[in-house]
Amino acid sequence: MQRRDFARTIAATAAAAALPVSRLAASPARRAAGVNGERLNGWLTAIGEFGKTPAGGVHRLAYSEADIAARAYTMQLMREARLDVSVDAAGNIFGKRAGRDAAAKPIIFGSHVDSVPDGGNYDGNVGTLAAIEVTRTLGERGTLTRHPLWVACWQNEEGGTWGSHLVTAETTTAERATVARSGKSIDEGIRLLGGDPARLSSARLRKGDVHGYLELHIEQGGNLDRQKLDIGVVEGIVGLRQWEVTIEGFANHAGTTPMNERRDAMLSAARFTEMVHRVVTSEPGRQVGTVGRMQAFPGAPNVVPGRVACTLELRDLDDRNIQRLYDTIVVEAKAIGERNGTTFAYHEFVTHESARCDDRVRALVADSAKALGFSTLSLPSGAGHDAQNLARVCPMGMIFIPSVGGISHSPREFSRAADITNGANVFLSALLAMDATAFG
Amino acid sequence: MQRRDFARTIAATAAAAALPVSRLAASPARRAAGVNGERLNGWLTAIGEFGKTPAGGVHRLAYSEADIAARAYTMQLMREARLDVSVDAAGNIFGKRAGRDAAAKPIIFGSHVDSVPDGGNYDGNVGTLAAIEVTRTLGERGTLTRHPLWVACWQNEEGGTWGSHLVTAETTTAERATVARSGKSIDEGIRLLGGDPARLSSARLRKGDVHGYLELHIEQGGNLDRQKLDIGVVEGIVGLRQWEVTIEGFANHAGTTPMNERRDAMLSAARFTEMVHRVVTSEPGRQVGTVGRMQAFPGAPNVVPGRVACTLELRDLDDRNIQRLYDTIVVEAKAIGERNGTTFAYHEFVTHESARCDDRVRALVADSAKALGFSTLSLPSGAGHDAQNLARVCPMGMIFIPSVGGISHSPREFSRAADITNGANVFLSALLAMDATAFG
Repeated sequence: MQRRDFARTIAATAAAAALPVSRLAASPARRAAGVNGERLNGWLTAIGEFGKTPAGGVHRLAYSEADIAARAYTMQLMREARLDVSVDAAGNIFGKRAGRDAAAKPIIFGSHVDSVPDGGNYDGNVGTLAAIEVTRTLGERGTLTRHPLWVACWQNEEGGTWGSHLVTAETTTAERATVARSGKSIDEGIRLLGGDPARLSSARLRKGDVHGYLELHIEQGGNLDRQKLDIGVVEGIVGLRQWEVTIEGFANHAGTTPMNERRDAMLSAARFTEMVHRVVTSEPGRQVGTVGRMQAFPGAPNVVPGRVACTLELRDLDDRNIQRLYDTIVVEAKAIGERNGTTFAYHEFVTHESARCDDRVRALVADSAKALGFSTLSLPSGAGHDAQNLARVCPMGMIFIPSVGGISHSPREFSRAADITNGANVFLSALLAMDATAFG
Repeated sequence: MQRRDFARTIAATAAAAALPVSRLAASPARRAAGVNGERLNGWLTAIGEFGKTPAGGVHRLAYSEADIAARAYTMQLMREARLDVSVDAAGNIFGKRAGRDAAAKPIIFGSHVDSVPDGGNYDGNVGTLAAIEVTRTLGERGTLTRHPLWVACWQNEEGGTWGSHLVTAETTTAERATVARSGKSIDEGIRLLGGDPARLSSARLRKGDVHGYLELHIEQGGNLDRQKLDIGVVEGIVGLRQWEVTIEGFANHAGTTPMNERRDAMLSAARFTEMVHRVVTSEPGRQVGTVGRMQAFPGAPNVVPGRVACTLELRDLDDRNIQRLYDTIVVEAKAIGERNGTTFAYHEFVTHESARCDDRVRALVADSAKALGFSTLSLPSGAGHDAQNLARVCPMGMIFIPSVGGISHSPREFSRAADITNGANVFLSALLAMDATAFG
């Protein structure tokens, strides 16, 4: 399908949503409401209670009690939207709604409700709840799509988009022995959420099984907010790789070991952290490198650290660039270690290749936003999302709404209620456009 | 008393220990046994079971179950040595033995049995068990000293020589709210060990209350081992100050926050750590500076750290030098923080002024060692010890034995059985010399 055909699709979509195109085009962005924005934002406030932190954010690690409680709330909202709720073998929640055409493949859309440690209430929640609101709106209007609609709430997104990974790729028991931040392995987490690692193949989605995938998310960066734009049309999702870095030196008494006889793992870790920053910033581009976790052992003020455990994360739109940066870092770290008799070892525990959004879905999202009168920006996603895994099996697209100040993974993460409603409306429109589109 | 008088004292001491001076002078160092070295080393092996780690070291944090078990074992050994065992209001264990002169002040000697996290089996244990062995030897020989003998097992030495501090200085409830590594406050620890914070004044030792203090300890450095010398005669104990350093930046998403918009607390912590190393090593001297504890928060691979908590420790024989280094570090850290919008805050939680050993006790230790045929080295202690607190109330001295490879605060900490026995023999001789000495 060519790009110019979308105008017709959008017109059809707006008709299905009972909003005349002329009115849409004429009305200011924030008045073009299709979904019940008040209800949606009410749910968002409510879900923020699960794992709420004193700073007003959310601490809801995958497989924690707060995660399980937020999932139960999500399932309740799905039932209220008259969706058939099930948990697949991977522990993902699906709220399903039948379509007109029994032979049509499902459209999957949704996000997640787990959070990073001490995170905010918008990352994941906005997309999950907007997906439910969209189906509830369709239900209230009696709109039946051609394709079945599957609202997905993917498990353990923040630990490395595990839920969507498990249904779009083969995994091994060894991989799933990875211990999540809550202290549970992926397999333990799957069982805890009502899944079954032994039956993962029953949950697998393969290329051709799915009509398309859409995900609404907060930008988590400051581009839309800074430029005062309504909607982000995502170009693709950057590749991401994470390593556990272990630095071994020799623990010794901090009072009796002269400075020049130390094999101080912490000093090497410090030099490593600064070197990563230097290597990543020494060339133009949007690549980022982060040392986010750091702990010295044994961890006493009066002991020269004999071991340090930290993480290294690298992201870029070009996977080859990530590999090149990593290679440089390894070489430089070796030299750092040789200065004071310490060694560096790396264990890669998260690998996500970059994923481009489907051009047709991008156009469909952009046209939906424009038809509703919203200003848009094409941009890559610096953050990883479940959408990147769904790109393995179907045409995929993402919609961003502004994050105030670009703040994310923080209690101060915030998106305005109006922007959330706008995003849900673009989502509704794009979903109906996708339903009306025959991907070749 | 002048130094030349010690020859007579030593002769009297050797006689009391039923070892003719002529034989002592003629015999090789390692044959001049007065204590039961086999028994002493057996106890040392036995106490190593409490808090034993897979690496063969000891993890016996003050106020932990392992600490309490090792203290119970220590009290049992004291009873077997026919000492009167009591726990003072500060939670210190004393094993007391009456002297000939009811009016004479006690000689206190001993060490501790708590350890650093993942430490070794020699730090503290050697001195505590040698002190018990010395009294047991005296008991078996029917030797009655003039002064009462108090074997001390000080509580929570590794957390900042708390036990000896509590009996030699005023402390406030606020100070004692300090949380030890075991997670308990000092007051909670005191109660757990059978003391009573409300009755601390009953345990106070004041200037003039004590005849003298002696402590045997492993060197924890490599000087004796490297130079193949038997006994270290300690000149004094370096001053030590420890700070909690909190670095505040701003937590944000590691994928969506460009490198130049980050307020990365971990990057500042890394620059701080390297700067401390540079400042401390940029001038000649024996000063040391250590960043021993380090943790980034929230501590996820995909979040730019918004806060880092670490420790800074500085030690030197000259307290003014410590202050000068600290002042330089604070100024340089401020500049580091200004580079990326982060701030540094300091909370000093341990302060120990340097303490010189009493010259008369030093001479007495040196002469005892020489009379027993041992080679000696005068050296400062880079490590803090309970002895530094006792220096507030009485003449104090310390005896070091070699640490193989200078390794300490590590599972690989090791002292040879023969060196431990030698040290205990010098200790016995020095103790009797101190008993026979009238400090002016």
